[in-house]
Amino acid sequence: MNLKPLNDRVVLKQLKAEEKTKSGIVLPGQAQEKPQEAEVVAVGPGGNVDGKEVTMQVVVGDKVIYSKYAGTEVKLDGVEYIIVKQNDILAVLE
Amino acid sequence: MNLKPLNDRVVLKQLKAEEKTKSGIVLPGQAQEKPQEAEVVAVGPGGNVDGKEVTMQVVVGDKVIYSKYAGTEVKLDGVEYIIVKQNDILAVLE
Amino acid sequence: MNLKPLNDRVVLKQLKAEEKTKSGIVLPGQAQEKPQEAEVVAVGPGGNVDGKEVTMQVVVGDKVIYSKYAGTEVKLDGVEYIIVKQNDILAVLE
Amino acid sequence: MNLKPLNDRVVLKQLKAEEKTKSGIVLPGQAQEKPQEAEVVAVGPGGNVDGKEVTMQVVVGDKVIYSKYAGTEVKLDGVEYIIVKQNDILAVLE
Amino acid sequence: MNLKPLNDRVVLKQLKAEEKTKSGIVLPGQAQEKPQEAEVVAVGPGGNVDGKEVTMQVVVGDKVIYSKYAGTEVKLDGVEYIIVKQNDILAVLE
Amino acid sequence: MNLKPLNDRVVLKQLKAEEKTKSGIVLPGQAQEKPQEAEVVAVGPGGNVDGKEVTMQVVVGDKVIYSKYAGTEVKLDGVEYIIVKQNDILAVLE
Amino acid sequence: MNLKPLNDRVVLKQLKAEEKTKSGIVLPGQAQEKPQEAEVVAVGPGGNVDGKEVTMQVVVGDKVIYSKYAGTEVKLDGVEYIIVKQNDILAVLE
Repeated sequence: MNLKPLNDRVVLKQLKAEEKTKSGIVLPGQAQEKPQEAEVVAVGPGGNVDGKEVTMQVVVGDKVIYSKYAGTEVKLDGVEYIIVKQNDILAVLE
Repeated sequence: MNLKPLNDRVVLKQLKAEEKTKSGIVLPGQAQEKPQEAEVVAVGPGGNVDGKEVTMQVVVGDKVIYSKYAGTEVKLDGVEYIIVKQNDILAVLE
Repeated sequence: MNLKPLNDRVVLKQLKAEEKTKSGIVLPGQAQEKPQEAEVVAVGPGGNVDGKEVTMQVVVGDKVIYSKYAGTEVKLDGVEYIIVKQNDILAVLE
Repeated sequence: MNLKPLNDRVVLKQLKAEEKTKSGIVLPGQAQEKPQEAEVVAVGPGGNVDGKEVTMQVVVGDKVIYSKYAGTEVKLDGVEYIIVKQNDILAVLE
Repeated sequence: MNLKPLNDRVVLKQLKAEEKTKSGIVLPGQAQEKPQEAEVVAVGPGGNVDGKEVTMQVVVGDKVIYSKYAGTEVKLDGVEYIIVKQNDILAVLE
Repeated sequence: MNLKPLNDRVVLKQLKAEEKTKSGIVLPGQAQEKPQEAEVVAVGPGGNVDGKEVTMQVVVGDKVIYSKYAGTEVKLDGVEYIIVKQNDILAVLE
Repeated sequence: MNLKPLNDRVVLKQLKAEEKTKSGIVLPGQAQEKPQEAEVVAVGPGGNVDGKEVTMQVVVGDKVIYSKYAGTEVKLDGVEYIIVKQNDILAVLE
C-alpha cells in the first residue's frame, strides 16, 4: 500500500530518532520548533493549491530538513511517515 | 437519505476505531493532530470556493488519510460520517 | 414578518433539539463543533461578498447539515432561526 | 448633529432593550454573539473598502438584525447609536 | 512642529476627556472598544497602502467618531494627539 | 560599519530616553503601544515587499514618530538603532 | 554535505554567541525578539513563494542582522546553522 499525497504535500521518512518520550509527551526543552532530517518518499502533484500556483521542487530520494511540528505523522504497514506541505521543507541536503 | 457536500467538501467514513474515550474526552497524548484512514463516500462539486478555484482530486471509494480534528462528525441513519474540506485530505492510499 | 438575509447568508430552522442546557451553558462534551440538521427558510442573493464572487447553492426547503457554532440564533415571532453564511453549510440531505 | 458613516459603515438605532447590566458588565450567559433588532439611521457610501468593492444593500428606515458585539456604541445628544460594518448586518426584516 | 501622517493615517485631537486613570491603567469597565469624538488636525496622503488603494475621505477640521483603542497617542509640545488609520474613523459628525 | 535595510525597512535612532528599566523589563503602565520620536538613519529600497508595491516616503534625516514595540533594537559599534517597517512609522515631524 | 534552501529561505551562520542557557531555556529578559548578526552561507532560488514573487537580495558572504526567533536552528556535521526566510533578514552590514 502506497501514500499518494494531494496538492503540495510531500511524504517523508525520518532519518533520525525522535526526541519525544515514548508516551508522546513533548519535553519542555523541545517546545520550540525543531528541524528534522528525512528522506522524501512521495511528492504531490503541486499545481493550484489554495489559489496559488505551487511548483514541486523536491523529488523522491531527496534528503531534506523540515520543520517537524508542521507535519502529520502517519503509520502505514508498521512504518512511520510524516506528511508535510512542501513549504515546511526548509532545505535539501546535498 | 444521502449527504451531498457543498463546495470543496468531502464526506468520509472512518476505517479505524477512534481513539477518544467513550465520554468524548480527548486524552492528553491525543491532543496533537492525528491522521485517520477513511473511505470517501461523497465528493462536493469544487469550483469557486472562497474566491479560489478548487478541482476535486478524490473520487468515491478512495481510501484516504485525513487530519481528523479538521472535520465535522455527522451521524445519519445510525452511521457516522466525517465531512472535511478536500485540503484536509493529506494523501490517497493505493 | 420575514427575514431577508444579506450577501451569502442563509436563514435556517433547526430540525433537531439543541444539546445545550436550558441556562445556555455549553456542556464540556459539546465544546467541539457539532453538526446540526436544519431546513433552509431564506437564502441571500450571493454575488460579491467580501471581494469574492459567491453563487448560492441551496434553495428554500433544502434539508442541510451545518456547523452550529458558526451561526447566529434569531428569535422572531416566537420562532427560532439560525443565520449562517452559506459556507457554514456542510452538505444537503437528499 | 448627524452621523455620516465612512466606507461600508451603517448607523443603527436599537429597537430592543440591551441585555447588559447598567455598569456595562456583560453577563456570562451573554458572552456569545447575540442578534439585535435595529433601525438603519444612516448608511455609508460603500465603494472601495479595504481593497474590496462594497455595494450598500440597506437603506435608511430598514429594520435589520445585526451581530451586536461587532459594532461600536455611540451616544450623541443623549441618543444611543450603534455603528456597524454592513457585513455585520445579518438580515433585513420585512 | 507639525505632524505629517504617512499613508492612510489621520492625526486627531480629542474633544472629550479620557476615561483612563492618570497612571494609564485602563479600568475594567473600559476594556471594550469605546468611541471617541475628535477633531481632524492632519490627514495622510492615502494612495497605495499595504497593496490597497485608499482615498482619504476626511479633511482637517472634521469632527469625527473613532475607535479609541485602535490609535496611538502622541504628545507633542504639550498637546496630546491620536494617530489612527482612516478606517478606524467610524463616522463624521455634521 | 553601516546598516543597509532590506525591503521596506527603515533604520531609526531614538531621540528620547527609553521608558524600560535597565534590566529590560517592561513596566505594566508601558504595556500599551507607545509612540517614539526617532531620526531616520537608513532607508530600504522599497519595491515589491510581500507581494505588494511599497514606495518609500521617508528620507535620511527625517524626524519621525513610530510604534516602538513593532521594531527590533540593534546595537552596532555601541550605538542603539531600531529597525522598523516603514508602515510602523506613523508620522513625520516638521 | 551542504544545505540547499528552498524558496526564499536563507542559511545563516551566527557570528555572536547565543544568549540562551545551555539547556535551551530562554531567559525572561530574552523573551522579546532579539536581533542577531550572522553570515549568509546559502541562498534559496526565490521566485514564486506562496503566490508572491520574491527576488533574493542577499548573497553568500553577506553579514546580516536577522530576527532570531523567526528562524530554525539546524546542526549539520557539528556546525550550527539558522534557516530563515529572507524577509526575516532586517539589514545587511556593510
